[in-house]
Amino acid sequence: MKEAGDLRPFFEPEAVAVVGSLREVPGTAYWVIRNMKHFGFSGPVYPINPNPAVYKMVFGAPVYASVLDVDGQIDLAAVITPPSTVPHIVAQCAQKGIQAVIVLSEGFAEAGREGARLQGQIQDLARATGIRIMGPNTFGVFNTANGLATLPPFTDQEKIQRGGVAFCSQTGSIGPHQMPLEDWAYPISKICDMGNKCDVDEADVLDYLADDPETQVVAMHLEEVRDGPRFMDAAGKCAARKPLVILKAGRTRGGASASASHTGALAGNEPIVEAAIRQAGAIRVRTWQELWEVPKTLLYQPLPGGSRFAVITFTGGQGVIAADAAQDAGLELAVFTPETARNLSRISDRLGGNPVDMGPVMSDSRSQGSSNPFSALEKAIPLVLDDPNVDCATITFYAGRQIASMFPALVDMVHASVRETATTVNVWIYGTSLSAMQEMARRFEAQGIPASFDLDRAIRTLGCAAGYAAGPARGERIR
Amino acid sequence: MKEAGDLRPFFEPEAVAVVGSLREVPGTAYWVIRNMKHFGFSGPVYPINPNPAVYKMVFGAPVYASVLDVDGQIDLAAVITPPSTVPHIVAQCAQKGIQAVIVLSEGFAEAGREGARLQGQIQDLARATGIRIMGPNTFGVFNTANGLATLPPFTDQEKIQRGGVAFCSQTGSIGPHQMPLEDWAYPISKICDMGNKCDVDEADVLDYLADDPETQVVAMHLEEVRDGPRFMDAAGKCAARKPLVILKAGRTRGGASASASHTGALAGNEPIVEAAIRQAGAIRVRTWQELWEVPKTLLYQPLPGGSRFAVITFTGGQGVIAADAAQDAGLELAVFTPETARNLSRISDRLGGNPVDMGPVMSDSRSQGSSNPFSALEKAIPLVLDDPNVDCATITFYAGRQIASMFPALVDMVHASVRETATTVNVWIYGTSLSAMQEMARRFEAQGIPASFDLDRAIRTLGCAAGYAAGPARGERIR
Repeated sequence: MKEAGDLRPFFEPEAVAVVGSLREVPGTAYWVIRNMKHFGFSGPVYPINPNPAVYKMVFGAPVYASVLDVDGQIDLAAVITPPSTVPHIVAQCAQKGIQAVIVLSEGFAEAGREGARLQGQIQDLARATGIRIMGPNTFGVFNTANGLATLPPFTDQEKIQRGGVAFCSQTGSIGPHQMPLEDWAYPISKICDMGNKCDVDEADVLDYLADDPETQVVAMHLEEVRDGPRFMDAAGKCAARKPLVILKAGRTRGGASASASHTGALAGNEPIVEAAIRQAGAIRVRTWQELWEVPKTLLYQPLPGGSRFAVITFTGGQGVIAADAAQDAGLELAVFTPETARNLSRISDRLGGNPVDMGPVMSDSRSQGSSNPFSALEKAIPLVLDDPNVDCATITFYAGRQIASMFPALVDMVHASVRETATTVNVWIYGTSLSAMQEMARRFEAQGIPASFDLDRAIRTLGCAAGYAAGPARGERIR
Repeated sequence: MKEAGDLRPFFEPEAVAVVGSLREVPGTAYWVIRNMKHFGFSGPVYPINPNPAVYKMVFGAPVYASVLDVDGQIDLAAVITPPSTVPHIVAQCAQKGIQAVIVLSEGFAEAGREGARLQGQIQDLARATGIRIMGPNTFGVFNTANGLATLPPFTDQEKIQRGGVAFCSQTGSIGPHQMPLEDWAYPISKICDMGNKCDVDEADVLDYLADDPETQVVAMHLEEVRDGPRFMDAAGKCAARKPLVILKAGRTRGGASASASHTGALAGNEPIVEAAIRQAGAIRVRTWQELWEVPKTLLYQPLPGGSRFAVITFTGGQGVIAADAAQDAGLELAVFTPETARNLSRISDRLGGNPVDMGPVMSDSRSQGSSNPFSALEKAIPLVLDDPNVDCATITFYAGRQIASMFPALVDMVHASVRETATTVNVWIYGTSLSAMQEMARRFEAQGIPASFDLDRAIRTLGCAAGYAAGPARGERIR
């Protein structure tokens, strides 16, 4: 794991040192070690504290006064000590031959002049010694493959689902301590908070994630781009290999000035950023919720072959709203082939067009005493998904407590069609009960069918996928 | 309740007849009566079925073969029978002197030529006799004040919260059978599904709701406008008295054509609709979720006096995203008065500007061993909300299971400031646990502080409120 310049020691270390206070509360080195144990990191973790006499043992490991006192090899050091002590500690890390340091501490460039000076010092150390530094002012990294978790805050999540989405961000508003990853069984490969980016920046992270076999989709939150040409190059390479979704904040005047005040960084020229992201073939999203939802569809589903969209609803009104949303998302309403139209109209003379409104059909079937209200739907779904004129589709589902017992059969029925088709499919779930909606969503996503509680966002997501598929980058189909 | 042309008999009948099948399954007249009892309608409900010999008693009431056999006065008839039987039944209702009929049955103009002919017949009956008809192809009305519920489908909600928001829609995709009203304790006055609008149309409904003292905010989903000038007049009058939020679907070419195919109606000329809504002083929203969230803020909170926006976050990154969203929503970042800036900087030298990033301050306070991590927030919130340069504000909150015990104190703390200010406030809730987020949201909304799980939508909602307040209509402050 020794290639110069690569970030593997940050994400795939064999042995880690954690430097800082060993008080048993969140926000300390103790808690970093606790989180590492909690998420199952199995390599050696060396607690480092200047008072090894006070803290003799932590989680069964002896405490050392300095990384230099540790005999074994250390690949990564996570440092959470007062800013003024950090340069010395980083120098010791370099002396020990540690390749990667994450400076979790706050109080650097984002906090004023003295912090900026200290940040400059560790930046100089990185340049002089070749040690790589992530941060400062970061929660560092999270890796579901090895349980590495350098975040110091409390998180109440038991287990983050291992999967193909990497999230990286400029600030600590991302990660297992902030997002409902466990509730959604969100499929995570890596999480990375880049913080003040004194050394490791977005281009480094993109380079790493582009090569990371665990990562199939990259979601990135950015406030500023450190080095435009390097970023464009890295984004272009990454987006050519796997979908890259970017939320570039600070895109308005107010946002840019807010960004400058909290990171000390300039947000950059918005039209240039916009053009760079487009030219790289990445997907640009505008809201936090999109950054959350778009990657799932890209991971779970094949990329659409075009922008022809179909929607299957339980009421006609939803179909009209969906048609509007599709046009907003850059999609067009698919025109079914005559064969599909004919086959649909064999189910009911009310069917044949797109949107596909199953409401009247299911209501007829109920009034005719059918025992399975979903039998017409079961016939209609594969007809729509297999139509060669359809590239992507949203199916809407009602979820209420009283029909929760039908969810497994319903999801299996949809999945049977979805797994046989190359069409990109997601579902919009609405209903009377939030817990029932969540239960249904979990079941769909467990079968690789992404679920949203917002119809507009579900369709916008398909638009993002179609835009990526048609763009300069050509990601291979990911499943 | 006898003014000609008014809709009170639809919403405030003393006695109701329900005409249709008395099979004990959803989608029947039986189920309409069941829903009415379920939601507490206390007036007489007369079951009407041509086979009174088969169904002698329903819910303790004798079954009649026709409304003409009922001795007492009937104000409203809800009819759910095969379309071909409906004209005769409506004629009997008129003969009985019933003022209002809701035709719940499907199979009219939306279903083809024969249905359109039958719809024409009942329309003619309305014109000839003066009886008012809602529908056909509707779920009718819901009124939290008297428990009136004409909807035939199953709903698993126990109790809908009585409150100030009226929802009316063109199709049955709205109402207690579809929306998580109970989970959110959504404050509802009336719900009305207009269906095919053979007689009662959106202008009638707006006229009624404008006068309805129970309704303080009107949310309307429309696909087509029946009579442009009447709609403009009614919308203008309504919006002058109370906020009117309109989701006009079919605004794109695809949406308009989808609408035409399921209702048989033309969606209308989009630029004219847009201008009409603007000129009326109504708020136009574009997505279903906005139609759901925007009314709550208008109900719970005062209207903003301008468009100057402040945001209080726990991380700087959120503040930047919020600043972008504010600009998208037509808001501008408030510049605090020197006094506010000074008072904020007394809490911490990291504070003073907008966005207000409490993250570093709370983290400092933790590391200094403060027992109350929210003490700085408690000081900052009133400073921001009471700044004369701030018209509206979003406060962001993290919700996780491990801090759920703190929610009551936290919500009380926020509420203490919010109730003293004229600034429009809502909260964005994010976190690791969906159930904890929901629990926190319920507590905030119980104190009149609207909560959203989508930062962009929370801020967009404030933009809608500011736009309404600045528009041609001048709603009075609603609390």
